[in-house]
Amino acid sequence: MIIIGIDPGIARVGYGVIEKGTRTIRHIENGCIETSGTNQTTSHRLHEIYRRISALLAEHAPDEVAVEELFFTKNVTSAIRVAEVRGVILLAIEERGIPVIEYTPNQIKLAVSGSGRAKKEQVQDMVRRLLKLDEIPRPDDAADGLAIALCHTNTLR
Amino acid sequence: MIIIGIDPGIARVGYGVIEKGTRTIRHIENGCIETSGTNQTTSHRLHEIYRRISALLAEHAPDEVAVEELFFTKNVTSAIRVAEVRGVILLAIEERGIPVIEYTPNQIKLAVSGSGRAKKEQVQDMVRRLLKLDEIPRPDDAADGLAIALCHTNTLR
Repeated sequence: MIIIGIDPGIARVGYGVIEKGTRTIRHIENGCIETSGTNQTTSHRLHEIYRRISALLAEHAPDEVAVEELFFTKNVTSAIRVAEVRGVILLAIEERGIPVIEYTPNQIKLAVSGSGRAKKEQVQDMVRRLLKLDEIPRPDDAADGLAIALCHTNTLR
Repeated sequence: MIIIGIDPGIARVGYGVIEKGTRTIRHIENGCIETSGTNQTTSHRLHEIYRRISALLAEHAPDEVAVEELFFTKNVTSAIRVAEVRGVILLAIEERGIPVIEYTPNQIKLAVSGSGRAKKEQVQDMVRRLLKLDEIPRPDDAADGLAIALCHTNTLR
């Protein structure tokens, strides 16, 4: 079963692709879609993110996609930008009829590291260990994408 | 020149289509895309809105589209839902390479009625008069869509 985890953001959308077997979890790919605000409209960035997420879904044909739920910060402007990105990501997934499941940051931390209050570094190191990677994936957003995918495999158990 | 005004919302997306000539403004169409939260996921609703906005753009081939900017309420949850809708609307417009211009609620009120603090009813009645309609379009969201399109013609003068 192929699972993709996605961490939405306007500047960076992190993602991780893993395969869950009966007793195994295998790392397939991780990465980060970066868009620049310099000389680019929001619409253009949304289109770029949509295009690349669609390509990722076409390439890996995941059975399910897990997306991080919006974290309610005090910064409403930033939350709104991230929500616009979430909108086009959810659209790309829905267009292919793939089930999408959302997890809060705490659920992800708890599932991956055993504690909802784990530090970012602890979660990232658990991602590295669970997927038998030599190093923690960079940037952070890519590691977060894998953490979200791993969180979902936990729910499947 | 064909202009479409769009008022985004998760339950209702209002729109208005007008034609601006050298000295004239003509009403073409107005309406409202309604989606229900009953038995429908957010992703499904976003897809429905995207599909219908794309069809509207294909039908009228507007030269420019005006969209209402997000109004910063204290209700962050609601603002986030509307932002997800805005994301897929901006995507549909960008995919066709149509310029999109955003206006705040105050700019729209000011442009249509002459006052940024005009009441909803005053703005709607001005929409009716400017477009020589027999009645104020219903629901409110459709009238709002026309107001946004009219606001944009003001900027073009």
